[in-house]
Amino acid sequence: MASLLTLALISELRGIVGERGLITAANQLQTYECDGLTAFRIPPLAVLLPESTKQVQGILRICDRERIPFVGRGAGTGLSGGALPSENSLVISLARMNRILNIDIPNQQITVQPGVINANVTAAVSPQGYFYAPDPSSQTVCSIGGNIAENAGGAHCLKYGFTVTHILELTVVLPNGDIATFGSKTLDTPGYDLSGVFVGSEGTLGIATEATLRIVRKPETIQVILAAFDTISSAAQSVSDVIASGLLPAAMEIMDRLSIEAAEISVHPNYPSCEALLLIELDGPEVEVNLQMTSVIEICKKNAAWETRLAVDEKARFLVWKGRKAAFAAAGRLSPNYIVQDGVIPRTSLPTVLQQLNAMAAKEGLRVTNVFHAGDGNLHPIVLYDRDNPGEEERAIDLSLRILEVCVQAGGSITGEHGVGREKQCSMSYMFADPDLETMQRVRRAFDPLNLANPEKIFPTPRLCGERSRGAYAPHPIETSGIAEVF
Amino acid sequence: MASLLTLALISELRGIVGERGLITAANQLQTYECDGLTAFRIPPLAVLLPESTKQVQGILRICDRERIPFVGRGAGTGLSGGALPSENSLVISLARMNRILNIDIPNQQITVQPGVINANVTAAVSPQGYFYAPDPSSQTVCSIGGNIAENAGGAHCLKYGFTVTHILELTVVLPNGDIATFGSKTLDTPGYDLSGVFVGSEGTLGIATEATLRIVRKPETIQVILAAFDTISSAAQSVSDVIASGLLPAAMEIMDRLSIEAAEISVHPNYPSCEALLLIELDGPEVEVNLQMTSVIEICKKNAAWETRLAVDEKARFLVWKGRKAAFAAAGRLSPNYIVQDGVIPRTSLPTVLQQLNAMAAKEGLRVTNVFHAGDGNLHPIVLYDRDNPGEEERAIDLSLRILEVCVQAGGSITGEHGVGREKQCSMSYMFADPDLETMQRVRRAFDPLNLANPEKIFPTPRLCGERSRGAYAPHPIETSGIAEVF
Repeated sequence: MASLLTLALISELRGIVGERGLITAANQLQTYECDGLTAFRIPPLAVLLPESTKQVQGILRICDRERIPFVGRGAGTGLSGGALPSENSLVISLARMNRILNIDIPNQQITVQPGVINANVTAAVSPQGYFYAPDPSSQTVCSIGGNIAENAGGAHCLKYGFTVTHILELTVVLPNGDIATFGSKTLDTPGYDLSGVFVGSEGTLGIATEATLRIVRKPETIQVILAAFDTISSAAQSVSDVIASGLLPAAMEIMDRLSIEAAEISVHPNYPSCEALLLIELDGPEVEVNLQMTSVIEICKKNAAWETRLAVDEKARFLVWKGRKAAFAAAGRLSPNYIVQDGVIPRTSLPTVLQQLNAMAAKEGLRVTNVFHAGDGNLHPIVLYDRDNPGEEERAIDLSLRILEVCVQAGGSITGEHGVGREKQCSMSYMFADPDLETMQRVRRAFDPLNLANPEKIFPTPRLCGERSRGAYAPHPIETSGIAEVF
Repeated sequence: MASLLTLALISELRGIVGERGLITAANQLQTYECDGLTAFRIPPLAVLLPESTKQVQGILRICDRERIPFVGRGAGTGLSGGALPSENSLVISLARMNRILNIDIPNQQITVQPGVINANVTAAVSPQGYFYAPDPSSQTVCSIGGNIAENAGGAHCLKYGFTVTHILELTVVLPNGDIATFGSKTLDTPGYDLSGVFVGSEGTLGIATEATLRIVRKPETIQVILAAFDTISSAAQSVSDVIASGLLPAAMEIMDRLSIEAAEISVHPNYPSCEALLLIELDGPEVEVNLQMTSVIEICKKNAAWETRLAVDEKARFLVWKGRKAAFAAAGRLSPNYIVQDGVIPRTSLPTVLQQLNAMAAKEGLRVTNVFHAGDGNLHPIVLYDRDNPGEEERAIDLSLRILEVCVQAGGSITGEHGVGREKQCSMSYMFADPDLETMQRVRRAFDPLNLANPEKIFPTPRLCGERSRGAYAPHPIETSGIAEVF
């Protein structure tokens, strides 16, 4: 495909990023054909690995002049195809822009380049007693730039908020090559909150080349409790009751029997054998956590939890979380194929929606295992199936579709934290009315009038979605490989 | 001015809002000529008082068709001229859209029309143990719609965040009359965060007609401490030290000697007589607050506080806050005229910036009194002067200008919570580079291509700012009257 780039253009790009910043060899380009959503693959024309804001500017000026589409790429761990190249596009990998530029402890902020790995932000400020709160389970491999593009969440976003809550200031190279600053290192700025609209825009508004992040003081104490229930509804009811009581745990996660068994086979966390496991983490001053934990245990028991186990030391906590974090990878032990769904519902609908999902699965003769961020209503139902059984994949896709419909009907959303990307763009009009989508499109054109920045993502198009561009949804099965680290 | 509206148009508008929803009589229009920034006055063509989203839609469809500018108006308490009519514009007052539409305690949210008064939101959920956190001091009179337009703050935004943090979903009538929904009642939604960009857009992107707000559980305990210092720097240093220690108080306010004296004359809060008074409010579980208060007192003493007074019961707290909230009104007792400034600096710059401001004031022979949200670096220096002394007003304006310059140079902002409006638009380019402002303008046009929604606000224009449209700032003195309730 590189033939569409003239030799003169290649030479011009090389002049910007240097010899080792440009990839055009077909075998090397393969790595960049897809992200974590491996079902879609498009080879890019070339991959650029800039090392500075100025180099990114140089590249985008050429893209603007030559009308070449470009796709920014972080660590490539995304699950919705957000970093999938467009036809005849350049991929701009931010992997080499991985420096921490400034640490300002008194003002509780850190300035980083977009290629810095999420976990390295916490590592940089941990000695001073701080951490970076957004914690996608891929945090040891995913990058801050990708987190910004997807407005990444994680188990602890219940208490601490998504990425957008932690972005103070962004340096952004706009699609025309201009360099702009959105937000501010102080708390409030005049004019429009363009930092807010940029975070979660999935690479369609430009490329962030510097980010000042808010860091948070480490809590004095962390405690995790495991509670075992006979029904998933009673675990879900406990989640609603905990929130209604005014408590705000750092995390509240639910796993069902299948997930528990899979985790057990996989990493032996020694979970109780039950229909539903509720995991609640509390953090804060020790006296407060002790008091709150008493209330949490009372609520669980009131909802018929028949066992509660408290993990107070770091070793015990690590084991609890190890099981939870391994649950998705472990699904591969239950079934040769599976679809991981990502939907959001109002927290109070958890018991009824989960009953509905289980009934739907039973009717189809399919197994669905549930592992999810219960505290913020973010479901990750996993539809298990075997591609070798005729018709089963189609039934699994159809079920997965109807799960999302149930989420939207309950007043929720088609995606919590994985983004729309290429995967769910045909379902956007299922959730949004025309004026909502048109306004977003106009905002997109305000940033990118030539439609060069990650085009054909997020929004439904007739070419991609056809007649399904209104009201339809088509999920795509995810390969087992490479899923482990990304939840 | 109503002569620019044809009789046919007036009749059409009356058909939408009814007889009592339309004001055209010149004497009645006077009320709507300005907001809290009374130095600017422009009579509107007419004032409309719609009672539903559909009526707002009908009005904006006519504005779109006839190219008539419109200015949304909440309670009119704004301080930056955001609700100042444009030439030949309609004013759309949301005062009659003042119904609470839904209260959902389990999901911790409330849905209101924009004309609902801020304090009434808390009143509606207080019996169930909740409150609405953003608390501009005008909260007994200002409206949620105005709060959304200005992204209103308040003393307690240090801990709880500005209005934008508390907006879940907005129903917005776009300038072309389409009705859109931004955000969602669940926690995360796909696509661009248009709710985030709308909040704080000062009425330039459309009119919000419904808002779903996040409500917060009332803390178990609230305690306020007053600490007396010999220098404003040591009070400011205490603020930095408290934050650096990892504590997050609900509020941290500083008053200087002049403000203390003015408050004392005005409402007799029985403050200690000192150079700088630091007021710190802690809230949360009782055991936690007790522990944290011990640390706060230690920090204050380490910074040479010579008296600390703890207010634990409601009566004592009320008196402390009464003095603080009266401080601005009380400035009228110190001087016949004054300019209230609104700037932001990084919290850690407080000691140096405050010393700088006092030195500047001394050099001009003017008095500046300081009352401010120290926790988030939001300064409200008040420049006192007497218009009857020849040249003094000019020197006061000049000083006020240089105070903002100092804020921006320290890495801060020209406004914290009062907005840009008409007052500070000529100084926007002092703070933002061209690509930043151009991107904002393009976003504005994405929502409002005909430039009808509150035109000639926020952004510098050659007509209004002339040669000052780059790098200049011209603050405007505020009349003493009507200031009392708005801080």
